[in-house]
Amino acid sequence: MKVIKTVSELQKIAFKHLKNGDEIGLVPTMGALHQGHESLILKSKKNDDVTIVSIFVNPAQFGPNEDYLKYPRPTTKDLQLCKKNHVDYVFMPTLNEMFPNNHKTFVEVPDLQNIMCGKFRPTHFRGVATVVVKLLNISYACNAYFGMKDFQQFKLIETIVKDLNFKTKVISCPIVREKSGLAISSRNLYLSTQEKEISSKISKILKEALRDFKNKNLSYLKKTTVNKLNKIPHIKIDYVDIVNFKDLSFADKDTKKAVLAVAVWIGKTRLIDNIIMTK
Amino acid sequence: MKVIKTVSELQKIAFKHLKNGDEIGLVPTMGALHQGHESLILKSKKNDDVTIVSIFVNPAQFGPNEDYLKYPRPTTKDLQLCKKNHVDYVFMPTLNEMFPNNHKTFVEVPDLQNIMCGKFRPTHFRGVATVVVKLLNISYACNAYFGMKDFQQFKLIETIVKDLNFKTKVISCPIVREKSGLAISSRNLYLSTQEKEISSKISKILKEALRDFKNKNLSYLKKTTVNKLNKIPHIKIDYVDIVNFKDLSFADKDTKKAVLAVAVWIGKTRLIDNIIMTK
Repeated sequence: MKVIKTVSELQKIAFKHLKNGDEIGLVPTMGALHQGHESLILKSKKNDDVTIVSIFVNPAQFGPNEDYLKYPRPTTKDLQLCKKNHVDYVFMPTLNEMFPNNHKTFVEVPDLQNIMCGKFRPTHFRGVATVVVKLLNISYACNAYFGMKDFQQFKLIETIVKDLNFKTKVISCPIVREKSGLAISSRNLYLSTQEKEISSKISKILKEALRDFKNKNLSYLKKTTVNKLNKIPHIKIDYVDIVNFKDLSFADKDTKKAVLAVAVWIGKTRLIDNIIMTK
Repeated sequence: MKVIKTVSELQKIAFKHLKNGDEIGLVPTMGALHQGHESLILKSKKNDDVTIVSIFVNPAQFGPNEDYLKYPRPTTKDLQLCKKNHVDYVFMPTLNEMFPNNHKTFVEVPDLQNIMCGKFRPTHFRGVATVVVKLLNISYACNAYFGMKDFQQFKLIETIVKDLNFKTKVISCPIVREKSGLAISSRNLYLSTQEKEISSKISKILKEALRDFKNKNLSYLKKTTVNKLNKIPHIKIDYVDIVNFKDLSFADKDTKKAVLAVAVWIGKTRLIDNIIMTK
């Protein structure tokens, strides 16, 4: 496993692989790797000739009052997880390498970035979009892997790749959950034991909604989900939305495949989760 | 010479060339090809193993009241010019091929797109930025060629390519002028004989400013340029700006390399021109 720090070095190595006819897989992460990331790495190891994991805490996707500075950066542990999984290259650029002071360009998908999480994190998705386009160009990825926990992010990237004619395939992996049902996230590290316990109720409430999807109407489903979530102590709901799987538009009675997506605060920690519901 | 209509076909062919180790040159145009475009094609033919000319009148870079519909589309003549110059591939996609109805993604460089021409054409440069990123991904261009008449466009694309880590080199070619000094442009086709004659004064006024650049201060230079332009009959000035060659910031007395850029209307035709001034 080789750790690469500069754009030019990775670009050179990746281009050589591309010319050799190697299939390149990219797993873009912000580090603090967990079983969710591991599932993406394993999928790439299975599909691709070369697996690149990028670890970069991207300031462009944090708002001014968000947790950029305190976001966990357990580098040694992250590299161990990559090594254990036979990752070929870990790309760990500095901030200045990715966003030098005179960086001016942004990729935007207004229709997808100003809804759901974007309503509460107005610059988040343009930060995600921009860094992912950069990483695709640096890594020459044939396949890029994203977890379904960040469902909006997955759809955003799928859209960008299609719209901007990248040849990359965007591949999703299912949400990995703890035994309790809690969706695994790097931000779970912020939760106290008690908060973790109560957070596990979120996924149970989503499962109940899934059960009701075929029989109940969507406004009932949304209302009961909000009501149930509000009974969790110390919770503050950012949103509960039922959207079309295809394009994140609001689902209606004719929607065959929908996603119930929620974002909530448990104390000082923001958690997201979702469940896919099909008729 | 092969004319290609679909994204997937060009992408397939270009990727094959890339893997063969061929240097690919891209000349992005909106057609109505003239000697300016021809100079770009000739430069690519000299530098590259493969030359691709794209011809696409990009609606995303026209404002709602601009000349998208009446923009000249002399396809037969354009193809003849390409053939004469031994272009390898002409990419002529349909609107739906480049921007299907559900297109949602834009590339933006706010700092560079809201000044100069951008003040008068607020969505123009995001249209340019987005289509160029698409064309780079479709053509796998190693080199992309742009004329210096659209100086702001050239700097915008240089910035995008650097910021988004495209490996493409952005190459500029000097403005090609008619004998009268008038910068050659597809939009010159709109000018009447009389308008053409008076338009030739623009470049003469720029040349006079160049002569004065070393000795006069910038506000004097700008003021006299405005005054001289205003004496041209039927003229309406959009802007006269003196900017830093490097980053389009306003030039000051310490600027060693500046660009005097103007946009004017002659009757119903908008013309741009500029001159590089060095100390």
